[in-house]
Order: sequence, then C-alpha cells, then structure tokens
Amino acid sequence: MASIFSKIITGDIPCHKVAENDKCFAFMDIMPLAIGHVLVVPKIEVDRYFDLDDSTLSELSIFSKMIATAMEKTLPCKRVGVAIIGLEVPHAHIHLIPLNSVEDINFEREKLDLNNDELAEIAYKIRAELA
Amino acid sequence: MASIFSKIITGDIPCHKVAENDKCFAFMDIMPLAIGHVLVVPKIEVDRYFDLDDSTLSELSIFSKMIATAMEKTLPCKRVGVAIIGLEVPHAHIHLIPLNSVEDINFEREKLDLNNDELAEIAYKIRAELA
Repeated sequence: MASIFSKIITGDIPCHKVAENDKCFAFMDIMPLAIGHVLVVPKIEVDRYFDLDDSTLSELSIFSKMIATAMEKTLPCKRVGVAIIGLEVPHAHIHLIPLNSVEDINFEREKLDLNNDELAEIAYKIRAELA
Repeated sequence: MASIFSKIITGDIPCHKVAENDKCFAFMDIMPLAIGHVLVVPKIEVDRYFDLDDSTLSELSIFSKMIATAMEKTLPCKRVGVAIIGLEVPHAHIHLIPLNSVEDINFEREKLDLNNDELAEIAYKIRAELA
C-alpha cells in the first residue's frame, strides 16, 4: 500500500507543496514544531533514509539546501535545522525546521496548531523566494 | 582561529575517531544523547551546513550512510537518526544518534556520562564493523 507521503506526491492527498524535482518533493508539515516546518521526501518509497541509494541521498541533500536557503530568507530564524527520525511513517523524510533555539527541534514538544490558510501563506512565501 | 572540530581533525585535540576520508571525519560525541552518538563533520571549516558546496553535502551524506549502517549493526537501536542544529560550535556537524525512541534525539535532555574507556570501546566496535 502506498505510504501517506506517496499519496501526497501523487496528489491523492492534498498538501501545501513547496517544490519538487524528478526525485524529491517538499511540502509543509501540517503538525509543525515551528512556523515554516517543511518535510522533504524522496519520490521513491523507501522506509529507512540510510537505505536510499547514494544518488538519491545526494539529490536530497542538494534539494534540501535549496529549500532551506529559501526558508532562511523567508522566515524569522537563526538557521534551518535538520532532523531525520523515521519511527512513524515508513517513507524516509527529512524535517527542515526554522530554528531560533534548540527547543524548536524537540519532537517531544507539543506541535503548533496552524490552520490551512496560515500553512498556505508560508508555502506561498517559500515558493516565491524559490522562483 | 580553528574550530574545536578542526583541532580534532588535525589531532591537536584528541578524540575517539570512527572514520575519515578526504573530505569527512567521524568521531564519538563526548556528550552523547544516546550510547553510540557520533559526530560527522566536513574537514573544510564552514559554519552553516547549508553553506557547504553541493559536492561536500553529497559526500557527507554518503559517508554518514556508511557510518550509520555500521552503527546499526553494532549498537542496539531501531535505527540511526540524524540531527543538524549548529547553534553552538561554528563548524557544520551532523549528529548520528542510535534511536530506540524519539526521546533519544531530544537535545534538551541531560547528556549521558560515559567515560573514556566506554567511548573507546564503542568507537572500536564501529570501526571493526567498518573494516
């Protein structure tokens, strides 16, 4: 069965898309730890990040750099942090999180409650910076 | 002035080394969040991870995969997680952390107190797996 992220990539589940290329897809996390929290996923459905082939790992890093650079220009933060955990959804994913303090990347914290309009506006601003 | 990580790479500050290649260096974090917590750094001294050039980002990803794969074979964990934060030492670094739960990657938690012998033994085991 396709993972929730594969369904987002194919459009079967809606998302606030940020960017995509042939191998990678970025969209807003709907349960963000900080305002502007983005998920980057490979289009290929592989559970464990370190099981991805070298070429996909490289492309994900370079794609994430492009997204993070746009996020840093768009969102008030000291820098964009990265987390790869993967204990829940079995489709490798990279969290890009705007950081003002280390607390912003604590996954045990309560998630922010942003509505669709707020998420859409943040995605729009990052896309505009990417354009 | 050279960063603490540059001094570790040159050997001016001792470390429990795990592996190195021409661009990357891995060693045990002496303030680990979980047993087997490794730091991977680029040999080039750049503060922000996403300021690294694409080639170095790719090499770091592939090198981290090699280290994480050996860690997963050596240490009791569900998988190895990744965190890149960078609010303290101004030399980009990747945390590779053996995860049994999301709590293991919470940087607000108290660090483990492992002694030199314990760190040396873990580094030895990971190196043996890499060999």
